[in-house]
Amino acid sequence: MVGQVRRSRVEVVKRKSLEGNLCPVARSLDIIGDWWSLLIVRDALLGVRRFSEFQRSLGAAKNILTVRLRRLVAEGILELAPAADGSAYQEYVPTQKGRALLPVLAALGQWGREHLFDQGEPYALMIDAEHGRPVRKLEILAQDGRVLTADDVLVQPRPHVRATEPHGQE
Amino acid sequence: MVGQVRRSRVEVVKRKSLEGNLCPVARSLDIIGDWWSLLIVRDALLGVRRFSEFQRSLGAAKNILTVRLRRLVAEGILELAPAADGSAYQEYVPTQKGRALLPVLAALGQWGREHLFDQGEPYALMIDAEHGRPVRKLEILAQDGRVLTADDVLVQPRPHVRATEPHGQE
Repeated sequence: MVGQVRRSRVEVVKRKSLEGNLCPVARSLDIIGDWWSLLIVRDALLGVRRFSEFQRSLGAAKNILTVRLRRLVAEGILELAPAADGSAYQEYVPTQKGRALLPVLAALGQWGREHLFDQGEPYALMIDAEHGRPVRKLEILAQDGRVLTADDVLVQPRPHVRATEPHGQE
Repeated sequence: MVGQVRRSRVEVVKRKSLEGNLCPVARSLDIIGDWWSLLIVRDALLGVRRFSEFQRSLGAAKNILTVRLRRLVAEGILELAPAADGSAYQEYVPTQKGRALLPVLAALGQWGREHLFDQGEPYALMIDAEHGRPVRKLEILAQDGRVLTADDVLVQPRPHVRATEPHGQE
């Protein structure tokens, strides 16, 4: 499996271990696979901007929040901006790279709602702001539109090639 | 924001802190927001079954792998089964709940590939096994099919209601 690549780095240094990994899942988790980080991104995408607001929302200790926010800024997922109201505060604003995490959060939310809540238990739901209705369930689709399950996919290490180029299977 | 719910638990006990959280993202991260766990699920969905195979693929220390596998079994994401070849080994097989994590892995993979790889750098790609072509990019869709971005969604705490029931916005 793709996780075999650069195995030795995983054993030695956890922090940077997956940075050069061939698998984009592994590399993503190296950046945001800590749940504080993803909850910060969740809040940022919902409009939370200031340190004190993140702290109130997440109930995180100041030192934990400071480290995570700094890392998210360093990774280009959040950026610092002057406060929108002209005050002396700085705000953490999601970048395009940060906003692109929406499908990750939607997928986690949909899975959690289906599998981790009891019948009748209240939950928070992602809705289309315009019509106030839940977003559609995410589906993995083939290029021809077929809905794919875990049985229908493979992962293939590959060099950078055009998406349309034919290639064999693993 | 929804993260405010049961904030005090987050401060006291990290392990169980998000278990009762109203937000399905938070609750999911409590279960699988550790990157070892998600990489184990990734490998399991790609066909890895045995302890030694996970160890080889992930380069994880035995004790870390043991704890994570046990937790994934306890959470009903993997289940133990006799080895398919009739040998004395036990295999870790993804359950339906585990297989339902495919969109989370696909979303993480697509984000990682777009944002964490240099131009021309090789990467691993999720492909449709039947035709050998990459799966489509995940999109957040409204019920009426509009593609939604972070600007177009809200999160609404709500009791369990029918998806078709009209309701206001946060």
